Amino acid sequence: MTMTPSDRAERELKNLEAVAGNGLLHRRAFLRGGAALAGAMTGYTLVPSASGQQLADDAWSLVPGVTVPDYGTRSRFEKNVVRTLSNPKGEPRTQHARTPHHLLNGTFTPNGLHFVISHAGDPDIDPDKHRLVIHGLVKQPLVFTLDALARYPMVSRMAFVECGGNSAPLFSLEPIQASVQALHGLVSCAEWTGVPLSTLLDEAGIDPKAKWIVVEGGDPPHVSRSVPLAKAMDDAMIALYQNGERIMPGNGYPMRLLLPGWEGNMNTKWVRRIQLTEGPGMTFYEARTYAPVLPGGKAYRFYFIQEVKSFITHPSPGLALKGPGFYEISGIAYSGTGRIAKVMVSADGGKSWAQAALQQPVLNKAFTRFRVPWRWDGGPAVLQSRAWDEAGYEQPTRAQLVAARGETTRVPAVTGFPSQHYNAVTSWSIERGGEVKHVYA
Amino acid sequence: MTMTPSDRAERELKNLEAVAGNGLLHRRAFLRGGAALAGAMTGYTLVPSASGQQLADDAWSLVPGVTVPDYGTRSRFEKNVVRTLSNPKGEPRTQHARTPHHLLNGTFTPNGLHFVISHAGDPDIDPDKHRLVIHGLVKQPLVFTLDALARYPMVSRMAFVECGGNSAPLFSLEPIQASVQALHGLVSCAEWTGVPLSTLLDEAGIDPKAKWIVVEGGDPPHVSRSVPLAKAMDDAMIALYQNGERIMPGNGYPMRLLLPGWEGNMNTKWVRRIQLTEGPGMTFYEARTYAPVLPGGKAYRFYFIQEVKSFITHPSPGLALKGPGFYEISGIAYSGTGRIAKVMVSADGGKSWAQAALQQPVLNKAFTRFRVPWRWDGGPAVLQSRAWDEAGYEQPTRAQLVAARGETTRVPAVTGFPSQHYNAVTSWSIERGGEVKHVYA
Repeated sequence: MTMTPSDRAERELKNLEAVAGNGLLHRRAFLRGGAALAGAMTGYTLVPSASGQQLADDAWSLVPGVTVPDYGTRSRFEKNVVRTLSNPKGEPRTQHARTPHHLLNGTFTPNGLHFVISHAGDPDIDPDKHRLVIHGLVKQPLVFTLDALARYPMVSRMAFVECGGNSAPLFSLEPIQASVQALHGLVSCAEWTGVPLSTLLDEAGIDPKAKWIVVEGGDPPHVSRSVPLAKAMDDAMIALYQNGERIMPGNGYPMRLLLPGWEGNMNTKWVRRIQLTEGPGMTFYEARTYAPVLPGGKAYRFYFIQEVKSFITHPSPGLALKGPGFYEISGIAYSGTGRIAKVMVSADGGKSWAQAALQQPVLNKAFTRFRVPWRWDGGPAVLQSRAWDEAGYEQPTRAQLVAARGETTRVPAVTGFPSQHYNAVTSWSIERGGEVKHVYA
Repeated sequence: MTMTPSDRAERELKNLEAVAGNGLLHRRAFLRGGAALAGAMTGYTLVPSASGQQLADDAWSLVPGVTVPDYGTRSRFEKNVVRTLSNPKGEPRTQHARTPHHLLNGTFTPNGLHFVISHAGDPDIDPDKHRLVIHGLVKQPLVFTLDALARYPMVSRMAFVECGGNSAPLFSLEPIQASVQALHGLVSCAEWTGVPLSTLLDEAGIDPKAKWIVVEGGDPPHVSRSVPLAKAMDDAMIALYQNGERIMPGNGYPMRLLLPGWEGNMNTKWVRRIQLTEGPGMTFYEARTYAPVLPGGKAYRFYFIQEVKSFITHPSPGLALKGPGFYEISGIAYSGTGRIAKVMVSADGGKSWAQAALQQPVLNKAFTRFRVPWRWDGGPAVLQSRAWDEAGYEQPTRAQLVAARGETTRVPAVTGFPSQHYNAVTSWSIERGGEVKHVYA
């Protein structure tokens, strides 16, 4: 006996009891042979058809296709999937290019869409003329060409890089209506390949008095930051490749310092100089932008680690829901401390929570994609995600974070307002028509 | 007391005893605190300098940089890192675009450089008008739009895709002098994100009589292949994203079938139709190109799995060594059966072997980068790699493979000659001047 689609939908819906309020389903609901979903989506998204045998030719299959190029480019239908630019004319101030997380999927960021912050544009570096100098408290100062580095043993690793100022709009007193790209677009994740910095420092010979390195970029402002030697000897890398090919101009071509999990600005792009020192350099950026002021007037001297964080990318503002029914809620979680251990998702503004599935393998200090199935009944809902890392740190609520760090009545600017290291929960409100809004909940 | 560089080089060289002939070192030689290498490379690649404090400004740091674009593009200095094209004018025959493995590093292939084979160019598909039909032996035929698929639960996975004809030049009686790109450029690896095919087949309802699917692409020739239903229900995916962004036009935009580990041509690009059937379709390509003929006159009816394989990318033809000293030998290993278990590397043409380090995490049916440190003494050497997978399969020697499958006096063409599924060892000869040649050894 053949079941009708509506029979099957009814049967299968019984297999899909919600595990948390407002329709959140068990993260393994679709792993039960896939059958749990069968039929349930029919009414919303599928068009029955018995005409498969007589499938008509599409217009594009009746003409020769586009000649395959030597370097592939995206379909012309994807031209709107771009970074948003804060300074598109390249005026003499900082340029920000933000990653469109709501238009991507998977666990990392393609090179064309990796976020960029550049204080004077992207320097046009000739790789054959670029040099990396290691000096200061070393037994022998050294100069490396790109060819010299290419002979050293290399490692590859996935790692996110996040600007300390990512998500700063969430310090505002009122929620700013903007997309996940505008709010959280200053973080991306890539596979980086290069030479462990420890190998090069050993080569130069570390003077026992050295406790810090001061690292300088080859861009016009020579952006410089201080890094404890312990981090330099742990998992730091002079990265030469990004997602398999040479590093992009905006991400540090031909070489950058990678400090997995640490504040983006410390991952010095276009790196040209590493000086070993007894103390930190008190450089311009670290003494100004990256010393966050606290409500009582004190300030963090340094704030290295990008702490555990998550946000939902699908759905999110700009991706309206198209009628009630099944959706997958998915997003990104990461921690500068290590691996993500757990992500919980709420559809009722934090009253109840369902555990999300984590895309395997979960990697150290890299994006982890989380997913949870959801049956939207068409009514109001508030979506949130909250992550925990393997060290036991939990992502704070917004109330917890602003109690400790303050908030501001205006969009946070450079300093004097809380503007750095927002890692608390983000809330999306689903309106009756399916529109998604940024709210505090 | 400060050691001189030559003191240190002498001391450290003693720590670097070869573990196999012709200078292959232990794969963990550089993990001993990094110090094992220190000094040993000095004479070859480093320029001592005490002038770090007075580092001159480079020309590119004295002028404003390039304005950050909304979609990043590579440095102009990388314009020669491209795929090689067999049919660059798009004449009415098949086009091949090969991946430049010798110019890349890491564990996967950036989208612009993923290999492409296209029988009539890349169709210019409007994603809003594209449909996927599932019909045949199902309870209810279904038609999916891209929007409909976007609501389904998704998964992400790294997977290599390899043309059955990759490496075909190695069936030739004499070694063809060509780069690793020309010899092995028809394999690439990416992260694919999409909907498990099992979910969609369950949605349509599988008739118990169905044992195969016949899958058809939306390109002009409607390239079609038959796939056993068991594979379709195992790890097959309708992929919508490639390395985080929408699939590239040459790789199947807006959707393709992904069959991890199976012959590239079966991973139907631009997929538009899946018909469930009792038997295989005996389609044009599978009855012609992909039924390899054996020396005795018999032929494989099907040959699905891309078997365990490896090749060295660094060094390789075109990447000449620059004088004796330390180098890292690295390459790519993969198996359509599962994870890579072990890679052995020889520098003396297979007389002795050293175990290579495998970049972690080692993933199922994906590229694994292997690396081994090597001290080249400037004399003749023959480099080889050989891989084993977790199922216990070992990569054959060339002699073993051609004994079973034959060889040919000409570059293998479409049929009548052995031209498919070459997975045996590749050998690179290092000449006295450092040039690298393709040899049989």
